[in-house]
Amino acid sequence: MSALAREEALTTRQAVGERLEAFFDARSRHAGAYDRHFRQLWDLAYECAFGGKLVRPVLLIDMYDALSNTPDPDVHEKLLDLGAAVELLHFAFLLHDDVIDGDVQRRGRPNLVGSLLADAPPGVDPEAAAHWARSGAILMGDLVLAGMHQLVARVDLPLAQRSRVLDLIDFTITETVAGEYADVSMGDGILSGALPRVLSTTLRKTATYTFELPLRVAATMAGASTATEETLAAVGRQLGLAFQLQDDLLSTFGIAREHGKDRYSDLREGKQTAIIAFARHTDAWQRLEPLLGNPDLSPAQGALASHLLSECGARAFVEQLVDERYTEVGTLLSDGPVPPRAADLIRSLAGQLRDRRS
Amino acid sequence: MSALAREEALTTRQAVGERLEAFFDARSRHAGAYDRHFRQLWDLAYECAFGGKLVRPVLLIDMYDALSNTPDPDVHEKLLDLGAAVELLHFAFLLHDDVIDGDVQRRGRPNLVGSLLADAPPGVDPEAAAHWARSGAILMGDLVLAGMHQLVARVDLPLAQRSRVLDLIDFTITETVAGEYADVSMGDGILSGALPRVLSTTLRKTATYTFELPLRVAATMAGASTATEETLAAVGRQLGLAFQLQDDLLSTFGIAREHGKDRYSDLREGKQTAIIAFARHTDAWQRLEPLLGNPDLSPAQGALASHLLSECGARAFVEQLVDERYTEVGTLLSDGPVPPRAADLIRSLAGQLRDRRS
Repeated sequence: MSALAREEALTTRQAVGERLEAFFDARSRHAGAYDRHFRQLWDLAYECAFGGKLVRPVLLIDMYDALSNTPDPDVHEKLLDLGAAVELLHFAFLLHDDVIDGDVQRRGRPNLVGSLLADAPPGVDPEAAAHWARSGAILMGDLVLAGMHQLVARVDLPLAQRSRVLDLIDFTITETVAGEYADVSMGDGILSGALPRVLSTTLRKTATYTFELPLRVAATMAGASTATEETLAAVGRQLGLAFQLQDDLLSTFGIAREHGKDRYSDLREGKQTAIIAFARHTDAWQRLEPLLGNPDLSPAQGALASHLLSECGARAFVEQLVDERYTEVGTLLSDGPVPPRAADLIRSLAGQLRDRRS
Repeated sequence: MSALAREEALTTRQAVGERLEAFFDARSRHAGAYDRHFRQLWDLAYECAFGGKLVRPVLLIDMYDALSNTPDPDVHEKLLDLGAAVELLHFAFLLHDDVIDGDVQRRGRPNLVGSLLADAPPGVDPEAAAHWARSGAILMGDLVLAGMHQLVARVDLPLAQRSRVLDLIDFTITETVAGEYADVSMGDGILSGALPRVLSTTLRKTATYTFELPLRVAATMAGASTATEETLAAVGRQLGLAFQLQDDLLSTFGIAREHGKDRYSDLREGKQTAIIAFARHTDAWQRLEPLLGNPDLSPAQGALASHLLSECGARAFVEQLVDERYTEVGTLLSDGPVPPRAADLIRSLAGQLRDRRS
């Protein structure tokens, strides 16, 4: 990335950040009209929302610029709102995901549930405080999801374009929830964790809203051809799947991650990843099974599980899956209808994602 | 209500019911494209959603007709969508409320959590099944809330009217969540359950979305004056507060309700109602306190608590609050700008609500 490109990315990020700050600020002030307590919920949510690098909105806006020969400043205003909406959708999903997973941290910092717990008055029964904190996160997820729709519904777009953006949001929410529901169902033993289902769940749960949605909204706003939009959608799915599989690899085999989850937390939770789905059909499974989903897994047991997963070929298998995804992205770009500048943007993003270590 | 009016109400109810059926049907079919399991979640949700009498959409459409001298058939099509949206908002709130309250029934029938529990494969660990069922209801609440916004955003309205309807939805969601959050906070001992807070919570949690929202959307769609809309909003708040206070009275003192909750469930849950807030400042409190919030409350203890709440004047106090609300509705209508046919509609509704025994 050139110095100029880095400067521009910063500017886009700042502009989206300001839009999000204005969103939370207006809602916090409005909540204050009810009571101090409700305002505090919004203020804590704002603090928790702002750990991210806004990769989704930046991708949306950069892709619009790459697809447009003469980017329109009026459209940019609308893109900032749409970019903020994409980030709010991400935040709403995180809020409810964390409640479902029983997590109180995210990126090594307290999430909204954790922040509320820390904020509970002394002397309150711990079980009641936990219920209150979880309920606050469910309700804030609803407020953010509703606020995201409000933002999108008010962007001044021609009817056809508005319908297109609404369709994309609708599709994305359905797909993400389908993935999350399958993930929960596998984790709770309602559905089996066979590899094809684990892969489709991985794709739906993260890839769609993280990569496919911003790329398609950009294509829609830039008036790109259907062929370009569909190729970008396919690229987004490949990138998203690679991204999530790498995340699973880093969680299971990575060194303690700088801003990541506790080491071995995926193993402790018994998360149904592609690594686990592969290992289930190997000889290592007999020794692995009792270690997985054990909330009291010791570091030594974690290291053993990690070693067995490497030995049995699961690590190499998933690393190859990741490599294939990036190869597929290259193929989609070189043979397809995506214009050169847009293809370069994807290649640069894929390079960054491929090299990430946390 | 005349025979003709009853027939018309039936027709409106049927038309909204068909709109809702189409909504769930399309989404169930779309979910089927993912997997049978996700489709089943939509189908169970549809069954659970359809216990209600659609009072909110019927009120919206009847009020539009009462406010319009020449009701427009084109507008009626849009009102059916807006009416369906108001009902979906109600359903989304119920889904998350039930998760927060840990309820598995509603109106004496299994709610979505209860239906999912009944549907879990045999042999699944009961705690895992409970987690899965709760998570399914959280996710379905998100899908319904998102679907409601999709419906509203696609109604073809002029920009000013669209903004007005979006403002009303935004206001209603904020207000309902503010009420629900205060309710949870009081129940969990984070906030004290003083009478003014209990009353404002009661108002926000139910009255706004049940009465104020449909009345204001009707006024907006009929192009009513600001004075009329604001008076109808005030009427809606009074009706809603009376409705919820009556609900508290019926739960605490009523005979076993036909389609209602378990008798004494409010007492068992330690729900912070106006009845309890009043009783806290009477001599009966010392004997009442140990009975409230006891999940194992026996029928004899329930009867004793109910008797003490009557004796100490809490029942008479809340009955008077209810009476004052209906008197206030009468005053707002007779002195105010609401046109005669619209006022008659409210009076007829108030009469039905006042007489209800379940």
